[in-house]
Amino acid sequence: MQTTNVTGTRSAVNQMPMPTAINPTMQACIDACNACLQACEECYSACLSEPDVQARIHCIQVLRDCADICSMASQYMSRNSEFSQQFCNLCATICDACAAECAKFQDTHCQNCADICRTCADECRKMSTTKM
Amino acid sequence: MQTTNVTGTRSAVNQMPMPTAINPTMQACIDACNACLQACEECYSACLSEPDVQARIHCIQVLRDCADICSMASQYMSRNSEFSQQFCNLCATICDACAAECAKFQDTHCQNCADICRTCADECRKMSTTKM
Amino acid sequence: MQTTNVTGTRSAVNQMPMPTAINPTMQACIDACNACLQACEECYSACLSEPDVQARIHCIQVLRDCADICSMASQYMSRNSEFSQQFCNLCATICDACAAECAKFQDTHCQNCADICRTCADECRKMSTTKM
Amino acid sequence: MQTTNVTGTRSAVNQMPMPTAINPTMQACIDACNACLQACEECYSACLSEPDVQARIHCIQVLRDCADICSMASQYMSRNSEFSQQFCNLCATICDACAAECAKFQDTHCQNCADICRTCADECRKMSTTKM
Repeated sequence: MQTTNVTGTRSAVNQMPMPTAINPTMQACIDACNACLQACEECYSACLSEPDVQARIHCIQVLRDCADICSMASQYMSRNSEFSQQFCNLCATICDACAAECAKFQDTHCQNCADICRTCADECRKMSTTKM
Repeated sequence: MQTTNVTGTRSAVNQMPMPTAINPTMQACIDACNACLQACEECYSACLSEPDVQARIHCIQVLRDCADICSMASQYMSRNSEFSQQFCNLCATICDACAAECAKFQDTHCQNCADICRTCADECRKMSTTKM
Repeated sequence: MQTTNVTGTRSAVNQMPMPTAINPTMQACIDACNACLQACEECYSACLSEPDVQARIHCIQVLRDCADICSMASQYMSRNSEFSQQFCNLCATICDACAAECAKFQDTHCQNCADICRTCADECRKMSTTKM
Repeated sequence: MQTTNVTGTRSAVNQMPMPTAINPTMQACIDACNACLQACEECYSACLSEPDVQARIHCIQVLRDCADICSMASQYMSRNSEFSQQFCNLCATICDACAAECAKFQDTHCQNCADICRTCADECRKMSTTKM
């Protein structure tokens, strides 16, 4: 009986298990990447609307890079690509950079995004170092 | 207390609410797109491993198109793009085509993916026709 | 001797013809999309560095949507996806919007990007209406 | 007068120079990535149509990973992302793997794609090691 891969996102939409090569470490990382790409996109839009946007240019740039790589990491893992671990290793680096950048700003969206980026970096590191 | 946009994926990773322009219709659609892109990627890999891969070429092609557009739809909505509705309208078309193609195969991954694609098509249609 | 699909980008890297389903209309559109995504990414970075970034928020948002859809359109066409024409139809809409937005700014990168977006919109419309 | 970054793709569409941070090494790498993503997408479609598709599953999988990372590398460089070099380093690894896989098949599309992947791997390595 399979249940391990039926987590978060999927269970909201469809409860049926799917036979898959995706193990719990990978699924946790997919979920973290999906959460992170959304947080980065939202924080990106929010930063663009802030009156001090001028001070947030670097943050905006890193948020975009982070959203893009999380999105692609999610796809690589979902198809169980042989490069998932190397991809997640780079994703962890960019998530760390994004967390550090967002942490500089005191508004809720940046602080929240920093937390989600840190979680995603941790999951990506776990994913990239786990014996598969 | 959770806000309406703190659903599925995100709540698994981070329980903090995030101030956002994302309403429940959009969040449901983002979650459906994330679930659909994962289901399509998994079904794509599974189809490539089936002994009758020869018979599944069209299915494999549509699964890829569907995974890619769901992934991008999720990003467009997350940043509250002004083109989200037009994008989701096209996404619904491709999800419908993918559901129809997957439904032709009796294995669990295709039947399951067909269901998830149909759900995603419905959410994309709701998203694309909702007054924002 | 070069075949019709050996144009722009590819010939710079590799002169060998490749047997392909890609016809001249599609190749012209792929080249236009690649040029447009680069112009949009460059203009995006340049706008973020301008002292009046505050006035360019909408332009920055549309540039990103345009870069992303051009990138994906290029991939859909290159694999001769059955949805290429519908995808290019939406791409034309977003390129037009991006051209209109960039045209509002007098600096070289915006004026230049507006031109490239208009060309891309034209090629996408040709692509989306050509009998395949 | 054209600047060094007005090469391949762009000049086919628009001859105007664009003031940019993109240097010749980066532009050569962008062009190589664009050529590579197209070659991989075309070879992917061609492999799926071959009578011995069964023997090409791994090739098809690597072609897809290669197309996707080349596409994103092109975007990262075009916006002059601070992570371009790390991204291109991983891109070179995947291009090498794709070249090795395609080289196993004697048809023109695989042999040609192998060449283009090797060129792209070289450009990505140059890009990732150049002092910026």
